Amino acid sequence: MISVSVVGASGYSGIELVKILVRHPGVRIDRLFANSSAGKHLADVAPLFGKTVDIVLEPYSIDKISESDLVFIALPSGEAMNLVPAMLSAGKRVIDLGGDFRLQDTSLYERYYKRTHSASALLKQSVYGLPEWNYSHIQSASLIANPGCYPTSAILPLAPLLKEGLIESNGIAVSSLSGVSGAGRSASVEMSFGEVNESVRAYKVGTHQHIPEIKSVLESFSHTQVKLTFVPHLLPITRGIYTSTYATLANPVDEQIILAVYEKYYASAPFVRYSATAIPEIKNVVYTNFIDIGFRINPEEGQLILLSAIDNLIKGAAGQAVQNMNIMFGFNETEGL
Amino acid sequence: MISVSVVGASGYSGIELVKILVRHPGVRIDRLFANSSAGKHLADVAPLFGKTVDIVLEPYSIDKISESDLVFIALPSGEAMNLVPAMLSAGKRVIDLGGDFRLQDTSLYERYYKRTHSASALLKQSVYGLPEWNYSHIQSASLIANPGCYPTSAILPLAPLLKEGLIESNGIAVSSLSGVSGAGRSASVEMSFGEVNESVRAYKVGTHQHIPEIKSVLESFSHTQVKLTFVPHLLPITRGIYTSTYATLANPVDEQIILAVYEKYYASAPFVRYSATAIPEIKNVVYTNFIDIGFRINPEEGQLILLSAIDNLIKGAAGQAVQNMNIMFGFNETEGL
Amino acid sequence: MISVSVVGASGYSGIELVKILVRHPGVRIDRLFANSSAGKHLADVAPLFGKTVDIVLEPYSIDKISESDLVFIALPSGEAMNLVPAMLSAGKRVIDLGGDFRLQDTSLYERYYKRTHSASALLKQSVYGLPEWNYSHIQSASLIANPGCYPTSAILPLAPLLKEGLIESNGIAVSSLSGVSGAGRSASVEMSFGEVNESVRAYKVGTHQHIPEIKSVLESFSHTQVKLTFVPHLLPITRGIYTSTYATLANPVDEQIILAVYEKYYASAPFVRYSATAIPEIKNVVYTNFIDIGFRINPEEGQLILLSAIDNLIKGAAGQAVQNMNIMFGFNETEGL
Amino acid sequence: MISVSVVGASGYSGIELVKILVRHPGVRIDRLFANSSAGKHLADVAPLFGKTVDIVLEPYSIDKISESDLVFIALPSGEAMNLVPAMLSAGKRVIDLGGDFRLQDTSLYERYYKRTHSASALLKQSVYGLPEWNYSHIQSASLIANPGCYPTSAILPLAPLLKEGLIESNGIAVSSLSGVSGAGRSASVEMSFGEVNESVRAYKVGTHQHIPEIKSVLESFSHTQVKLTFVPHLLPITRGIYTSTYATLANPVDEQIILAVYEKYYASAPFVRYSATAIPEIKNVVYTNFIDIGFRINPEEGQLILLSAIDNLIKGAAGQAVQNMNIMFGFNETEGL
Repeated sequence: MISVSVVGASGYSGIELVKILVRHPGVRIDRLFANSSAGKHLADVAPLFGKTVDIVLEPYSIDKISESDLVFIALPSGEAMNLVPAMLSAGKRVIDLGGDFRLQDTSLYERYYKRTHSASALLKQSVYGLPEWNYSHIQSASLIANPGCYPTSAILPLAPLLKEGLIESNGIAVSSLSGVSGAGRSASVEMSFGEVNESVRAYKVGTHQHIPEIKSVLESFSHTQVKLTFVPHLLPITRGIYTSTYATLANPVDEQIILAVYEKYYASAPFVRYSATAIPEIKNVVYTNFIDIGFRINPEEGQLILLSAIDNLIKGAAGQAVQNMNIMFGFNETEGL
Repeated sequence: MISVSVVGASGYSGIELVKILVRHPGVRIDRLFANSSAGKHLADVAPLFGKTVDIVLEPYSIDKISESDLVFIALPSGEAMNLVPAMLSAGKRVIDLGGDFRLQDTSLYERYYKRTHSASALLKQSVYGLPEWNYSHIQSASLIANPGCYPTSAILPLAPLLKEGLIESNGIAVSSLSGVSGAGRSASVEMSFGEVNESVRAYKVGTHQHIPEIKSVLESFSHTQVKLTFVPHLLPITRGIYTSTYATLANPVDEQIILAVYEKYYASAPFVRYSATAIPEIKNVVYTNFIDIGFRINPEEGQLILLSAIDNLIKGAAGQAVQNMNIMFGFNETEGL
Repeated sequence: MISVSVVGASGYSGIELVKILVRHPGVRIDRLFANSSAGKHLADVAPLFGKTVDIVLEPYSIDKISESDLVFIALPSGEAMNLVPAMLSAGKRVIDLGGDFRLQDTSLYERYYKRTHSASALLKQSVYGLPEWNYSHIQSASLIANPGCYPTSAILPLAPLLKEGLIESNGIAVSSLSGVSGAGRSASVEMSFGEVNESVRAYKVGTHQHIPEIKSVLESFSHTQVKLTFVPHLLPITRGIYTSTYATLANPVDEQIILAVYEKYYASAPFVRYSATAIPEIKNVVYTNFIDIGFRINPEEGQLILLSAIDNLIKGAAGQAVQNMNIMFGFNETEGL
Repeated sequence: MISVSVVGASGYSGIELVKILVRHPGVRIDRLFANSSAGKHLADVAPLFGKTVDIVLEPYSIDKISESDLVFIALPSGEAMNLVPAMLSAGKRVIDLGGDFRLQDTSLYERYYKRTHSASALLKQSVYGLPEWNYSHIQSASLIANPGCYPTSAILPLAPLLKEGLIESNGIAVSSLSGVSGAGRSASVEMSFGEVNESVRAYKVGTHQHIPEIKSVLESFSHTQVKLTFVPHLLPITRGIYTSTYATLANPVDEQIILAVYEKYYASAPFVRYSATAIPEIKNVVYTNFIDIGFRINPEEGQLILLSAIDNLIKGAAGQAVQNMNIMFGFNETEGL
């Protein structure tokens, strides 16, 4: 039994995390922090927890986590880097669901996140928490940078094919569709129901902070330079990401060759489902930690189309964080998920 | 004042067409045909017409259209080719909203529509009804092949850039998102609310019948061979198409050069709106005949991203059909739209 | 040709109003006012107007409306009462889409709107703009209080039955469902897509400002004291109101008697559709100025169920305002609608 | 550890049931039956079960359930009555999620379900499986009639107040809103996304089969004759029921008196949450077995408004069935839920 705390428990990712943690047989929740709602019961902020979780939200301070073996940070990017140094100094293990420790190159961080990194010295000990690729580093990590939602959906289908040289590493187009929960819980006209419903729009084209994450992680895993274009779109659904990736085949292949590569990398991955025939659908992955991967070859044009679907709040955030926790603390990788 | 009839008045496109025609000051509706609902009032099938349109649906026969100057056919593909020969022989002008007369190459028709073409002799007199590119041919046409919804959304942004050589003609990826009305009004589990809502799925990947239409029309307009990949996705919205196209720039350009090309081709097109800054959104075009076009350059990768939005039932079907009618009969191009 | 201005042109009702006015053959738009967006083109605030309306939004001042025959006010309740006195003094006719001039009893206004009324002297010249009941007063009115959306949906089916004594005037339950556009265009967590989608909630139970409006207008039309309970619910749709009303029959009746009463009051009302068989659906009235009314008798319990549907932005706001304008200025009642 | 089978495993309720059962620590799934999909893997019919449940669907026959301690029937009403007699004869305990064994009065069954009851002799041993009211009978039952979704949402808030005489037993109006999953998984135009989305409609007004269930169960629990009107409405959401009930107070009361009654009946009910202040919302109960109950008093009119929300597939079907199973077999009432 380990003891964990969550900083940022009242946002969409924090709520999802608490939902998973309360069902996890090896975990005791120590403290839940949420500065803006401090003093309230979690169930007052998120009534779905009524009769289930009876914990008062607190303002965060380092001295309150002394009983915790692990701290999850589910705050907007830019806040974790101010908290993590003291946590690590206090000997805590940390999983950060935000973007502060995902990019090793601080110049990319500063360009895309538009702020200076205040804890860059910790980047080299940060482990990118994608269990299907970093299992052994995750086991021993003290600081996990939990992957972004879009990157999770794009990297898992692409990385094996790039590493095996089946697709060209340039000219890749990643076209992603996301539900609104990816944007967090906040007040704005543009995220209001009346503006989002019955519409679609691309956003942050060429400037989204997940662009350098997808590119640099793919380069790190495949040991090849990657050129890609990423366009996120906002959809009128609550949860889920659907990513359609267009790549050029290095050589003619058939479905079996692609399948064999996925088999090589993911046969024993408990949360990766792939198929040469089934087309992924968001409804098959929501409320689960699975990623569904499908693909089609366009032999006339020498193109490969990759299709993937995840729940942005589970495999794209809280579920993957718990998967990382399971690996760090020796639980079964699927425990609680 | 001209007299028009509609064959297939009870489907989604037919209903939309009647909505536009009843407001059009230069048009008198002669007959409405709908075999499956023959004998019923239109308002019984589509109650929105109550107190507005009082016309009884009839089973179609050629002798009933003798008073009509123009016949719209809003039937599933494969049915118009059985009706059009007699209509043209009777001296009628025809606008077919289906796919039977869009492909000049019957081998492509047979491959993608999976049936033999029974009226291929008429293909050479068929005019592809995209007014922004075929205005003068439309004026004198007796048979208009009204463009498909996806092709309208993909061809209008791509054609000027291909013709001017600004983008490479191979490696183009067209990623389209559509509301459900594009699939017509029919009973199936997979189009039921419970299966479509809160989900997304790609479909007909590599096999959609609009693939050869997009490709062959682009080739015809640009006089260059085109290689592209098209993937349609089904979204939980009723109306609208959003198309994101990924292309390789032939040479480095800036926004002004792209804008200038659109200016050259579309400055006087009443239903094309384009911008180097605004991002298209479906909500801005639904219930209108506009196409909104936006774009972003990715200079590091030499990529161009094109974004476009239309209402699939208006600019993608009934509205464009009326735009064609206006041109054929000398009305103002925007009349009734 | 009359000249009109709109104060509050950038909200949902204001936008809808402009959409109708630009198509109205008897109207010239003089000025559009929107303090928060002053200086911007309307099409920058609402891109759907691109290539259609080219007007710059202005900060409101009384001297700018000297050319206007009529001023529409589409502001949140509480603002019109500060503007109307000067408008009327300047000889303008005014249609207020807000709630400031709908309640003759200022104590009710103060209780439900939670503010003091600053222009109560004008209440006696205000005409409640429900054309099906107040046609002749509307013709000569200088100040129209355009009805609320919920009241329009509730009063039209109830008033004839109350006036004719077919239902008891107490124990009436009005259960209404509304899309989000009724709440206007604003930033709040509770109206964000993530909170509204896939949910339903009652709100302002017992305190909604439309309660005294429904009650007092019904009493005024039926000359009987009315006791009712009204509960509004928020639905995950953009447009539309569905109202289900439960009343006790005064005496046993059959469908024909109910129908005959509606026939008596609404046979010549161009925007009221009623039926003893059809069940209203929101999709049949959106984007129209119609109200659809249906009903069912429960003879065992002596209950009558009334069902009605409107588009809250059209018959519940902008469309009804234009209907009032048409009556005030001698246009055909349906012109532009 | 008990062994259970499910007849009708490929419908919405059946799928939901399997999702719960696979997580339940005290249950082993014996067989899954689905005649229309027999021979397929469950994960082929419902891909969400990929890598989670690996069971082949079978055509049902009585001899295949010999290993099962309990059989769940999740079939459309009218089918269970043909299967249950043989199951009971074989000594099996049965939970029927359909409507065949909920009404003790076969004349009501025949009137509302429009078919003859073929197993009426079993009705007297059938126990209505609402645990908050029938706990001890459920413990020993061999045949459970699992309550309908609408009745669950209406009976739980009403029954205590009727039994205690706080509200009049006549003139009750129950206005319910349901997501589409209540209608099951089937192909029809009227349940297609294009017809349901962005709309609302009442349906089966006065004829819905849950009317006699709500009425007779309330009468049985409260020992008083009940007169009520029930109107269900279809909403464009996937899951959830929201019920607003309008009743007349027998005498003036305040909130504390209502609360005290709920406290008396539900203080120890693990899945009932009630509040005098919070307004229920569907989003707080979906994917849970909770019912949320709220209320408001309208003292001027002497009316009480009850508001309740459930997930129709969980507390309204599969979750309540598992709750019943837990009670029947001595598990903790909340196990697996």
